[in-house]
Amino acid sequence: MSLEKFFQPKSVAVVGASRGKGKVGYEIVANMVAAGYEGKLYPVNPKADEICGVKCHGSLKAIGETPDLVVIVVPAKVVPAVMQECADLRVEAVVVITAGFKETGSQGKELEQTITQIARRNGIRMVGPNCLGLMSPKSKLNASFAAVSPLPGNVGYLSQSGALVTAILDVARAGNLGFSKMISIGNKADLDELDLIKAMGDDDDTKVIAGYLENIAHGDEFVREAEAISRHKPILLMKSGGTGAGAAAASSHTGSLAGSEVAYECVFERAGIIRCESIEAQFDYMQAFVSQPLPQGPNVVVVTNAGGPGIMAADAIEHAGLTFAKLADETIEKLAGVMPSAANIHNPIDVLGDAQADRYEFAIGAAAADPSVHAIIVLLTPQAMTQARPTAEAIVRTAGKCAHKPVLACFMGQAQVAEGVAVLRAAQIPQYNSPERAVDALVKMVKYAHWRSRPKRIVKLFPVNRRKVERIIDRHLRRQEREIGEVEAKEILEAYGFATPKGEIATSAEQAAGIAEQLRYPVVMKIWSPDILHKSDVGGVKVGLGSAQEVMDAFDLMMYRIPKKRPDASIIGVLVQEMCRKGQEVILGMHRDPHFGPMVMFGMGGILVEVLKDVTFYLAPLTAEESREMLVRTRTYQMLKGVRGQEGVDIDAIADGLQRISQLVTEFPQIVEMDINPFVVGRQGTTPIAVDARISVEEAK
Amino acid sequence: MSLEKFFQPKSVAVVGASRGKGKVGYEIVANMVAAGYEGKLYPVNPKADEICGVKCHGSLKAIGETPDLVVIVVPAKVVPAVMQECADLRVEAVVVITAGFKETGSQGKELEQTITQIARRNGIRMVGPNCLGLMSPKSKLNASFAAVSPLPGNVGYLSQSGALVTAILDVARAGNLGFSKMISIGNKADLDELDLIKAMGDDDDTKVIAGYLENIAHGDEFVREAEAISRHKPILLMKSGGTGAGAAAASSHTGSLAGSEVAYECVFERAGIIRCESIEAQFDYMQAFVSQPLPQGPNVVVVTNAGGPGIMAADAIEHAGLTFAKLADETIEKLAGVMPSAANIHNPIDVLGDAQADRYEFAIGAAAADPSVHAIIVLLTPQAMTQARPTAEAIVRTAGKCAHKPVLACFMGQAQVAEGVAVLRAAQIPQYNSPERAVDALVKMVKYAHWRSRPKRIVKLFPVNRRKVERIIDRHLRRQEREIGEVEAKEILEAYGFATPKGEIATSAEQAAGIAEQLRYPVVMKIWSPDILHKSDVGGVKVGLGSAQEVMDAFDLMMYRIPKKRPDASIIGVLVQEMCRKGQEVILGMHRDPHFGPMVMFGMGGILVEVLKDVTFYLAPLTAEESREMLVRTRTYQMLKGVRGQEGVDIDAIADGLQRISQLVTEFPQIVEMDINPFVVGRQGTTPIAVDARISVEEAK
Repeated sequence: MSLEKFFQPKSVAVVGASRGKGKVGYEIVANMVAAGYEGKLYPVNPKADEICGVKCHGSLKAIGETPDLVVIVVPAKVVPAVMQECADLRVEAVVVITAGFKETGSQGKELEQTITQIARRNGIRMVGPNCLGLMSPKSKLNASFAAVSPLPGNVGYLSQSGALVTAILDVARAGNLGFSKMISIGNKADLDELDLIKAMGDDDDTKVIAGYLENIAHGDEFVREAEAISRHKPILLMKSGGTGAGAAAASSHTGSLAGSEVAYECVFERAGIIRCESIEAQFDYMQAFVSQPLPQGPNVVVVTNAGGPGIMAADAIEHAGLTFAKLADETIEKLAGVMPSAANIHNPIDVLGDAQADRYEFAIGAAAADPSVHAIIVLLTPQAMTQARPTAEAIVRTAGKCAHKPVLACFMGQAQVAEGVAVLRAAQIPQYNSPERAVDALVKMVKYAHWRSRPKRIVKLFPVNRRKVERIIDRHLRRQEREIGEVEAKEILEAYGFATPKGEIATSAEQAAGIAEQLRYPVVMKIWSPDILHKSDVGGVKVGLGSAQEVMDAFDLMMYRIPKKRPDASIIGVLVQEMCRKGQEVILGMHRDPHFGPMVMFGMGGILVEVLKDVTFYLAPLTAEESREMLVRTRTYQMLKGVRGQEGVDIDAIADGLQRISQLVTEFPQIVEMDINPFVVGRQGTTPIAVDARISVEEAK
Repeated sequence: MSLEKFFQPKSVAVVGASRGKGKVGYEIVANMVAAGYEGKLYPVNPKADEICGVKCHGSLKAIGETPDLVVIVVPAKVVPAVMQECADLRVEAVVVITAGFKETGSQGKELEQTITQIARRNGIRMVGPNCLGLMSPKSKLNASFAAVSPLPGNVGYLSQSGALVTAILDVARAGNLGFSKMISIGNKADLDELDLIKAMGDDDDTKVIAGYLENIAHGDEFVREAEAISRHKPILLMKSGGTGAGAAAASSHTGSLAGSEVAYECVFERAGIIRCESIEAQFDYMQAFVSQPLPQGPNVVVVTNAGGPGIMAADAIEHAGLTFAKLADETIEKLAGVMPSAANIHNPIDVLGDAQADRYEFAIGAAAADPSVHAIIVLLTPQAMTQARPTAEAIVRTAGKCAHKPVLACFMGQAQVAEGVAVLRAAQIPQYNSPERAVDALVKMVKYAHWRSRPKRIVKLFPVNRRKVERIIDRHLRRQEREIGEVEAKEILEAYGFATPKGEIATSAEQAAGIAEQLRYPVVMKIWSPDILHKSDVGGVKVGLGSAQEVMDAFDLMMYRIPKKRPDASIIGVLVQEMCRKGQEVILGMHRDPHFGPMVMFGMGGILVEVLKDVTFYLAPLTAEESREMLVRTRTYQMLKGVRGQEGVDIDAIADGLQRISQLVTEFPQIVEMDINPFVVGRQGTTPIAVDARISVEEAK
């Protein structure tokens, strides 16, 4: 969808324009005039002749033409009538600035539904309500009541908080950061973050998309579209509201570990979105991404006129997982020929406290020419001989010559470095107040470059028995049973190529012994009840039973003890199962996020998953690389690889299992949660066993 | 020691004063004059009559009196002669600005030793060499060549990097943060960080001590003194050089886990020092600590005129481990009576976008009066109706009324909030650019307040058999054996009250069986060689041997296989040992840091310690509380408390073991490293067993 009528309108009407300075209806007209808007501007106010020198109209209809864009600032209860007028005139683009809708309670919510319906029924696209407005400096458009206007530039910004826009505009202007579009999306009753991100993705003036969001609608579409856009344009988002709430009521391990915050992390990861933890961090990243080339690797060189900050930068680089570049011999020779003998000509290149601009320029040039260097950070402290301004000019010159290496500056100080900082800002060299922040921005660039260069995602399709699963799920849904118990859950897993231990349910001690005799000793016994989820908590699991007598004893003990502990539980019997050979216990699972769909989980098994919460989530469908990545990202990955003489386990077999789960939950949207716990995996080449499993289903929406 | 002659000198001589503007020898005199120094100032330069209008002297002696403070800026090779002159005149305080000493290599190092010797032999205290100088605004003293002079205030600052001082001065001036003392300690050949921190600890003008360090001399004294000072004055330190290096060559687990970074963390923790990760963070903390009262608890209230930033602050508060305050009912009623109906009168208190100063003032006042609130963060975004300056004034008024609650402001933006920020700065209300940074500063205050209120440290002394340990250690040192093997290490542990499993070393299969028969089956067997540290890596550990035959088989197999794997190892025999009852395996250890002394370690045992590195270190001597804290701080602490039906272990017994190690290594400085691995601990009331142990000794220095 093109948002041309919003961002390059040939005519704009402001309904609710006012003569009262300080009033929103006045500020919008004033901002339009101050921005030098070159199209036709129609303030609408039946009681005024002109506002800010622009002729007023009594009503939308009185204008005599249909404006490309209508900005509405009338009181909330009048908005529906104005929307209807827009509909009558076949207006296509409306911004509703007015507040007093969904955010105020049920009455406002109804009012919002009313105007949204008018929009939908009449082909009107609407921004807001309850927003600050929108700006497009290149079109000389400022249809907002913000006190600061944006500079033209190449960042497209969208925000769910209008107040935040006011702060960002103010900071960005001071930092000479310009915007292609700036839009406050308010209650996003019609146009939402996805529409705008897509429009900015298609917009040639927008090189970087940034924004602030509190939630995301249309989760799976958002993931798909954002991922496609990230392939060619970075998306830098703040997302607040990360704590609290969550899936407290979830019944599975996977569910209880998968809060909404985890879902957002998965989405950002998949879609290549760079998350910003604060407005300062976002400004830091916008600066770097909009002006600098992406680094082609992680090797960073630091040029500094002071030892202390150089060490601090080195610390930050190492902590962040970047590499402190090792300079080539030729570079070191080159530096040795020119630098004073006391200078450090290795990384960090210390040009010394008395360095003037020329020495900086030589050092930066040498570093830039070194093929082993991927990015350059220039530190400056204001010492007696320091030339902040000429040094900044030298940085600008050198940066202009390195097409594939980002250059980031860190002039530390305030008044003493102000002139230099101004030069850097004017030339769009990112400037940071501390080395740590420069490094942080660089890390984000390196990670994004890495994300962008990953191979095409190919999701493997396994041959499976879909019909069988369909039958089991349908039967449960017909009976309104949400939980699929162990035996049928395992049938589902078998249909998707998992191996499970053999076993049957016994309802008497003798039957249990009979089943055990058919299997191979030792056997495992597990209480069988739809009401008992954590079997071991009630003594409902016995392992290593080696004879018929032990099996019968275990059966009778469970039947005697468990009903006392859980009188509420209906007990069907006891599952008698062959015992797995030894191996590493892990847990595989899935939780379906209400917004973003299935997230597959991997975790180290047994007690570790509960104590350490050492788990990783990825959005389904999974590729082979992603499923392996899920293992690598756990803190205890080394245990899978083998530690201290212990043999490692079959890592590909786990990755295979994760992909099978991914396929299962993608093909069956009715599955909302599942756990395979434990999934016992042995050494390379052996088949892992899904020892216990639980699947929850719901009617798919 | 008083540093009065440095900070309140009645007369100052500058040797090497120069007429050349831009030269260090000129800038110092100029700074002294500009600062309005009221004592006697003596530039010394045989070739000049006056500098900056001050009469020059041909030499120190030519002055005719002994100056309280001599600042030396002559070339490095001339410094010894000037120092000798100072000695002859009985000067007591010298600052050597001149560079070209230790930092330039061996020749410079010798020169530095020469001048240090002159100082030491003649009772001269010396700052530097290779430094920026020192400042004391209250004494109108600026004996430095810094381009910016500090404002008077109550932060005492010391820095191992002169360049960093220049940046900090510049930033602090812009932020209206003043200093009591500011000192660049350079190569700290004589006066070092400890001397200065002690002097600032005693200085009534210094409310907060801050600094930048690259290393710390006199480690244990530093810990002791800093801890005493932190009890009444916060110490805010940046410490760089944290990465790289480390104890790669260490032979024990504990040693390999204890890098120098771990030691610094231990020191900061023990001494209550607040660590600053960047100069921005340090500035943030200095602002808060110097002007605001310490919070009396973790409950934070946020007052905001915008929803988005309010959520971001709430996220940050929750992430940081602070508490989002629940307002008292009376507070909510009070707010409900005055705030507009759309305002959120719970925390965060959203005064709405159209809030002017009066509404802010009422809300802040209500929050301040609420006894459940411990700290207040005020957020402001520059919206149309916002009054940055009057709101700042309102904050200043309210903050003045809450004696025990810190108030932190976060005015987001730049030009639009500048007037408000200026009011806040002038009134010493800390101001932050983002809510996250305000929260970060507050966290440091809450933690420090908590540290300060901890009970007096009482170290328990256990009755032990010191003599026995002395004999074993002496014997090893006499024979120049660094490693004390398992059997004798256990004797040492027994002497300090640890229980160890029974066992003996066998040199033949028959002897092994004989020993086993004396113990109770099953038994454990371990290869016994001074050259094999990781026994299980070579198949040198067998557990669960249940009969004489199994014991003999195991003996012969080890004797056959291990010499093939490790032909270099001299094998003494095989240890036959009773098998421990089941329990949780943990690891207790100690590593003696070369600077800071013994650090006791606790970690989860077995493979976990290697994979997760889930360990904690604390400086010995340990209190009971600290040893329990060591357990609580591990990520897997829950495993000790008992998980999922499993009974917990005797936590006090582990804490007891840690305190016994603490006593052992404090009483025997020859012990440089030790591990008890595993230390098997059972349920409450049982005695844990030190199953395997290793102790390394060295001649104590």
